[in-house]
Amino acid sequence: MKIKVDTLKGFVKDVFVKLGVPEEDAGITADVLVASDRRGIPSHGVARLKRYVDGIKKGIMKPKAEIKIIKETPTTLLVSGGDGLGQPVSYRTMKLVIEKAKKNNVAFAAVRNSNHYGIAGYYAMMALKENLIGISMTNSAPLVVPTHGKDAVIGTNPISIAVPAGEEKPFVLDMATSTVPRGKLEVYNRRGKKIPLVWATDENGIPTDDPGRVLENLLERKGGGLLPLGGAEEETGGHKGYGLSVAVDILSGVLSGGAYGPLLYGKKGEPPNVCHFFGAINIEAFIPLDEFKKLMDDYIRILKGSTLAKGKTRIWIHGEKEFEAEEKYREEVEIEEKVVETMREIGKELGVEVPF
Amino acid sequence: MKIKVDTLKGFVKDVFVKLGVPEEDAGITADVLVASDRRGIPSHGVARLKRYVDGIKKGIMKPKAEIKIIKETPTTLLVSGGDGLGQPVSYRTMKLVIEKAKKNNVAFAAVRNSNHYGIAGYYAMMALKENLIGISMTNSAPLVVPTHGKDAVIGTNPISIAVPAGEEKPFVLDMATSTVPRGKLEVYNRRGKKIPLVWATDENGIPTDDPGRVLENLLERKGGGLLPLGGAEEETGGHKGYGLSVAVDILSGVLSGGAYGPLLYGKKGEPPNVCHFFGAINIEAFIPLDEFKKLMDDYIRILKGSTLAKGKTRIWIHGEKEFEAEEKYREEVEIEEKVVETMREIGKELGVEVPF
Repeated sequence: MKIKVDTLKGFVKDVFVKLGVPEEDAGITADVLVASDRRGIPSHGVARLKRYVDGIKKGIMKPKAEIKIIKETPTTLLVSGGDGLGQPVSYRTMKLVIEKAKKNNVAFAAVRNSNHYGIAGYYAMMALKENLIGISMTNSAPLVVPTHGKDAVIGTNPISIAVPAGEEKPFVLDMATSTVPRGKLEVYNRRGKKIPLVWATDENGIPTDDPGRVLENLLERKGGGLLPLGGAEEETGGHKGYGLSVAVDILSGVLSGGAYGPLLYGKKGEPPNVCHFFGAINIEAFIPLDEFKKLMDDYIRILKGSTLAKGKTRIWIHGEKEFEAEEKYREEVEIEEKVVETMREIGKELGVEVPF
Repeated sequence: MKIKVDTLKGFVKDVFVKLGVPEEDAGITADVLVASDRRGIPSHGVARLKRYVDGIKKGIMKPKAEIKIIKETPTTLLVSGGDGLGQPVSYRTMKLVIEKAKKNNVAFAAVRNSNHYGIAGYYAMMALKENLIGISMTNSAPLVVPTHGKDAVIGTNPISIAVPAGEEKPFVLDMATSTVPRGKLEVYNRRGKKIPLVWATDENGIPTDDPGRVLENLLERKGGGLLPLGGAEEETGGHKGYGLSVAVDILSGVLSGGAYGPLLYGKKGEPPNVCHFFGAINIEAFIPLDEFKKLMDDYIRILKGSTLAKGKTRIWIHGEKEFEAEEKYREEVEIEEKVVETMREIGKELGVEVPF
């Protein structure tokens, strides 16, 4: 059903406040979740609210987390999220990174003891308003197998980079380093569709077209899992996706002194120690902003105007689809009936008024 | 044939000196090229010497290039390579980046008006000796098609990141953002082998298994080209490899105010204006180096010790194969007979003594 953006944000915020999350943190988290729905990425939107609610109830996420700057220099930050929600610590850290980059041209932050932070692109895009290049990455639950490996010991570890343009929309890459995220298998499974052989492996580590089998194996830790970008073999470049995933984990989980690989979600009922990495680069330290934006426009137009392959209708720039969705869902977002139902149940259970 | 490392380096250096390259620059370039052969990447080693020699002769690469720092801050550098060889300007810029990162914890440099710089990993790995994380990327000749596009308008634009470990070998990711580089198609073509359908497209932009056809089309600019990591379709993640390629180009070609996409090698006989991007991050700004190295060792051992998929014999860490090759070729490298022959011809033509 269609729900007004402000109504949806208000409800999600109320839920978090009811669970003991401070008002400002609840507002940030609601904004990140609804932004995902608005950008046409429902897998990371309010469909996840139940998981957050459960996480807080189980004590895996602390509603009143103490965000602590452990170490700081003019260009770097090491932050602990205090096992709270991933969104508030990520938002606040990226704000600080942007301030530092404005003063010192480059800045990076590693965050540990956090939780799922939503879409990586949200934080990278915060840099756009300040005309900086923004970078955001995070490690995540071990769902992906390394090349030649049978067990899921690495995450889907996404990378986002946001770059301002002039008249064109900004370039916003926001990609999991696996071929697809788990949610994609769930969609195919619900529809009874087979999956391409570069998406996942079975319990023996062999590529499979059966999404249900992969999802069940992952739940029961029977072996197999999602494949890195490039698939199962070096011949198709699978070791590259695997390497990108590990690189993200090193910058997030190792550099922060947090958790990495299978150590995330190590013990049942304990906080997963999700880790993030944020960065910003000041364009004007290199060339004048106006010139940069002109070149970006030119490059984007070259790509978009380039000759189409037979049977194809459009060449996309990264972020373009999401900006179009954002335009479409400016006032109202389209939320799946099942997700609406779950939200109504959450509201009822917590005694939070459901305005839809 | 087997050639002593020092003998080979000496010859390559002599060739460049004979062509008017200053002694130090010639030495750096020889070292980068031979390092590639030693690391088991012959496609980027002395097999390329002829192209460099021709480039200098044709005036595409200037032997005595003026390397100029155009703009500098404590954390950033904008450098012009003066249309000289890519290796000396890259080596010198990475040296400066390392110095800056040691002082200010993070530093980045964009380089324009350069040429082919050899293996990306060489410069990222320079940071390892200083216990920093090193980053290196470059744009390159337009050989890759964007997702849904027919024409090769983006480069194989490689990314390298090098991270020190403790007792384990460093993690060194060094990957083209296309599924494979052009050299791989040349190998399959020579052997009369078909290529996987995620490697390249034909003149209509349709995936093909015929490497000869792709190579010919690329030479004659008839359409088609290499595919981004992930293949031709969004379903297999091709838009991610495409996005990574563009991101590298933005950081290298746009941020430096240089050339990008099809503008590289825009006019015949003119310098291609290849652009690079270098970075270094000081680990100790985040956590103590000892702790970081212990965590790296732990992570690497978890990955290497993880259960194998059926039929597989080993899980590799990025850079491991290359370090093993380096060990094997410590004293002598194995150079293809055809490449040796070409080097002998170069020596004869230039009047440089050939010691093999």
